[in-house]
Amino acid sequence: MAGYVSEAVIRRLPGYYRHLRELEAEGVKQISSQGLGERMKLTASQIRQDINCFGGFGRQGYGYSVSELRSHIGKILGIDRVHHMAILGAGNIGRAVALSDSFPANGFLTKAIFDSDHQKVGTIIGGVPVQDVATLATYLKANPIDIAVLAVPIQWAQQAAEDLYKNGVRAIWNFVPADLKLPADTTVVNVHLEEGLEILSFKMKQKND
Amino acid sequence: MAGYVSEAVIRRLPGYYRHLRELEAEGVKQISSQGLGERMKLTASQIRQDINCFGGFGRQGYGYSVSELRSHIGKILGIDRVHHMAILGAGNIGRAVALSDSFPANGFLTKAIFDSDHQKVGTIIGGVPVQDVATLATYLKANPIDIAVLAVPIQWAQQAAEDLYKNGVRAIWNFVPADLKLPADTTVVNVHLEEGLEILSFKMKQKND
Repeated sequence: MAGYVSEAVIRRLPGYYRHLRELEAEGVKQISSQGLGERMKLTASQIRQDINCFGGFGRQGYGYSVSELRSHIGKILGIDRVHHMAILGAGNIGRAVALSDSFPANGFLTKAIFDSDHQKVGTIIGGVPVQDVATLATYLKANPIDIAVLAVPIQWAQQAAEDLYKNGVRAIWNFVPADLKLPADTTVVNVHLEEGLEILSFKMKQKND
Repeated sequence: MAGYVSEAVIRRLPGYYRHLRELEAEGVKQISSQGLGERMKLTASQIRQDINCFGGFGRQGYGYSVSELRSHIGKILGIDRVHHMAILGAGNIGRAVALSDSFPANGFLTKAIFDSDHQKVGTIIGGVPVQDVATLATYLKANPIDIAVLAVPIQWAQQAAEDLYKNGVRAIWNFVPADLKLPADTTVVNVHLEEGLEILSFKMKQKND
């Protein structure tokens, strides 16, 4: 993908990937920018612009090959490889991530789960044993992890994030409603579930006003 | 809140609310746009602009009253009231929502959980019994629900959304990676967890390039 890509285009990439995967599953081989636009509620010209931005292919009048475009976007997203994940916090969210089928289906594999609660340590969640968080550093030295899923209580989030950093983890999927302070070479994506619910409440209110 | 508010400002509202709630918990009474900006990684002028947009208060040179501003933004978000929620799908995500402490703390109360799996019907999750989804319409007639949490398998999502609509539900917090097709008087907020992970993968890749 050459040059600057806007945050808005980046945010649309997973949507493209999902729709193309669905089309592939439906047996569709080719799709026009018009057809893809109708499906994704975007204009055909928006679709063409985006796809140009991804590295421009598809031939005028032929539409796009669904499988080629999906595989190309998968490569851009970096999901043409396996990612090893460690989950910190075996609470409700940590469990839900560990038990999900959809993350491993995209190559995001939960390799380890950590918790400080001795009642949880030793239990198995989705085939993965919960380990004592005191052994995190030792584990990470022997087993490099691509992504840490942070799902600990809020008061421990910053410390946990720093421990992860010290032990070489540079990507955090953060479910804790806290702004982590980490060096710039760390990538953090926040999932603030409460905020989604608040936005929903706001939009409901707006519709009723 | 007078007039048009941009999507970007709307998306920042929950962040304001969260930081102000934290400040209140820390015992902070007043905060300047400068101080709030540093905390939220926004410029002071951005903060002043946003707050003006929310309905403009705070006096020049005095900063903002933390509790007044928090309560004002809470009202804008519509979270100064209780919302009754019903969860459709008692799988990993449905369970995690039902068991969370943070949603009820903001007035989002899980009043009912539905599933079609007879093994799950009758079990209790976070104090709420799982009911047979076949009784959904009857339940909703007697117990109006503000928000449905949709966490069913993807192949049932559209039908479930339509059933909810037919029975008066006009707001859906959708965890299913599907674009629901619903009349315009419905408010849908999507939580596509997979997409967050794909964005994380993309950004990791970008940093390593």
